[in-house]
Amino acid sequence: MQLIDPSDAAPEVRAVFDDIKQTRRTDRVNNFWLALASHPATLERTWESVKQVMAPGALDPLTKELVYVAVSVTNGCEYCIASHTASARAKGMTEEQLGELLAVVGMANETNALATGFGVPVDDAFRRAP
Amino acid sequence: MQLIDPSDAAPEVRAVFDDIKQTRRTDRVNNFWLALASHPATLERTWESVKQVMAPGALDPLTKELVYVAVSVTNGCEYCIASHTASARAKGMTEEQLGELLAVVGMANETNALATGFGVPVDDAFRRAP
Amino acid sequence: MQLIDPSDAAPEVRAVFDDIKQTRRTDRVNNFWLALASHPATLERTWESVKQVMAPGALDPLTKELVYVAVSVTNGCEYCIASHTASARAKGMTEEQLGELLAVVGMANETNALATGFGVPVDDAFRRAP
Amino acid sequence: MQLIDPSDAAPEVRAVFDDIKQTRRTDRVNNFWLALASHPATLERTWESVKQVMAPGALDPLTKELVYVAVSVTNGCEYCIASHTASARAKGMTEEQLGELLAVVGMANETNALATGFGVPVDDAFRRAP
Amino acid sequence: MQLIDPSDAAPEVRAVFDDIKQTRRTDRVNNFWLALASHPATLERTWESVKQVMAPGALDPLTKELVYVAVSVTNGCEYCIASHTASARAKGMTEEQLGELLAVVGMANETNALATGFGVPVDDAFRRAP
Amino acid sequence: MQLIDPSDAAPEVRAVFDDIKQTRRTDRVNNFWLALASHPATLERTWESVKQVMAPGALDPLTKELVYVAVSVTNGCEYCIASHTASARAKGMTEEQLGELLAVVGMANETNALATGFGVPVDDAFRRAP
Repeated sequence: MQLIDPSDAAPEVRAVFDDIKQTRRTDRVNNFWLALASHPATLERTWESVKQVMAPGALDPLTKELVYVAVSVTNGCEYCIASHTASARAKGMTEEQLGELLAVVGMANETNALATGFGVPVDDAFRRAP
Repeated sequence: MQLIDPSDAAPEVRAVFDDIKQTRRTDRVNNFWLALASHPATLERTWESVKQVMAPGALDPLTKELVYVAVSVTNGCEYCIASHTASARAKGMTEEQLGELLAVVGMANETNALATGFGVPVDDAFRRAP
Repeated sequence: MQLIDPSDAAPEVRAVFDDIKQTRRTDRVNNFWLALASHPATLERTWESVKQVMAPGALDPLTKELVYVAVSVTNGCEYCIASHTASARAKGMTEEQLGELLAVVGMANETNALATGFGVPVDDAFRRAP
Repeated sequence: MQLIDPSDAAPEVRAVFDDIKQTRRTDRVNNFWLALASHPATLERTWESVKQVMAPGALDPLTKELVYVAVSVTNGCEYCIASHTASARAKGMTEEQLGELLAVVGMANETNALATGFGVPVDDAFRRAP
Repeated sequence: MQLIDPSDAAPEVRAVFDDIKQTRRTDRVNNFWLALASHPATLERTWESVKQVMAPGALDPLTKELVYVAVSVTNGCEYCIASHTASARAKGMTEEQLGELLAVVGMANETNALATGFGVPVDDAFRRAP
Repeated sequence: MQLIDPSDAAPEVRAVFDDIKQTRRTDRVNNFWLALASHPATLERTWESVKQVMAPGALDPLTKELVYVAVSVTNGCEYCIASHTASARAKGMTEEQLGELLAVVGMANETNALATGFGVPVDDAFRRAP
């Protein structure tokens, strides 16, 4: 797939790029969005969704980035690890926090495999409604 | 695999069960540990590792539980989702926070697939050392 | 692992390479088969299976390639995404179709995570026999 | 998580349920949406996205359902396999087509592992721009 | 999907069932094959492939079953874990061996995540041809 | 992430590096450990765990490496495939064994998908306690 050059982009693509730059207070649009621009409907929908989901809410933006990194590591998505680690650093993540995050992600992947391999039945206490 | 009955457990298994109960201030040992007890070396090592990794540090315990849930959902580990969602609630997670967490996990899984499918190259800006 | 040079290949390997070229009406054997040739039994079995599974049937060959790309993206297999995207284009896939395909793959990965995270029970209506 | 009873639902949730029923010409809202309704923002965003992505376009709706099943099988999402297999049947999928679909999904998962295990480098011919 | 009753099966399906029973010296055909019988071409091809791949060779049959369990745990395939754990036991796997197997599988899943999360570059020494 | 230069490493990091070299009878510490050294607690814990899990026991060290490769291929971890294939060769794995290993891993990934896609119920015979 190719990356769309912003200066050649259709107006509806450029409108998304402008919103990305304004929302994130940056001059750059990263490659993920330049690639999605080859299918403008996906670009628009994905940006609107990411903007909504990653906005501050009951969870703060840094916590959301840590979760994003955790999922990306588990899926082995190199691009996503690089981009969301950078975002997390920009939002204040320290190297010590990154080390602890990866330790938790590693341990979760191990115990996921152990629980699955041992076929552990869910405790009744965990099934209770909140 | 079977769950080991604590009252029948070997002394080194019982010592781990006692440490779990004391560390977590609970009377119950959940099924995961009862299953691992069929291989005592794995029980001891896994408990020591989980205890170290999930202790308060640069990341707070609730954030660590949220990350654990995110990995478990991505791997489709039903047991782990149930047990760590319960732990997160016990550490104060609200239903609104859970909703936002799952929204981030869902979006991360979507954009991981999009970045992989479009073959997006990592931006030079993300490769810079911290 | 190394790629086997067709001119150095054993007769049973060359016979598979010849069948690949004839079946696909091409002069080239792509790297996947050159790599598998280091284990001739795997080469032969895999080629016979792929030839059978990807032949026209109740599903047309382009639909089968789209499904292959969808699985490969979900597994994060870069080689397989590249080779089956090329095959799909050779069978008539347009760039608009590729865009829609990746949108569906992305959405499926998101809703898979949401269904798993929310622990949605299967509707009785879906359990009915066909 | 619990399923939201449509008769108890908030107005913005009921509006989504009504749109689902109207768009799909059905009286039932399946459990996936009843579960998502516990977080209305996720319900609304996900439904709008699914509605857009699964609409007829360059790919027909049945092909999109087949792709959805393929991803869901690869991720091991039981709920999603059940619901999208039902949708595919409702859109005309025959049992023979389902058999072929699963054969392709199985083969793709096998050759994904082989390509990854043998470390096959991407052919230059596949890297050419479309 | 439904399980095909052997007494109602078409002759080509019954031939595969007979070969399974003879090869494995058993009176039972397990559910996996009864399900695949709904698509006879997949049943025949899959059985021929499994028979070839799992036969004694440079690796002994028990080692192959252990590898099968390891993959099935990593993919979270409950059916496959149950059936291949049973096969491994039938081929002599002890409970201690199963415990060690799952410990290795758990550790591999953890260090896979760590290597991916830390973005560790492959050592030149590992790239050398065999 | 960066690789820690052993000559600049803190004493507790150097102690782990020394133990790795002594245990493995080598002069080199591979990149995985140099990367983990940026978070010393993870380095120490992971090394202690790997050392325990991979030691000779009810399963021999080569079998454990084969299992490690199988998991790493299934997860698509390029680094882990490279490093554990090298370790397996160092422990005596032949190219023929590697070919058979990858054939089993490929077949397991295929039949995992088939069992999941067909929704095969676990046979009662497999549920019996060991």
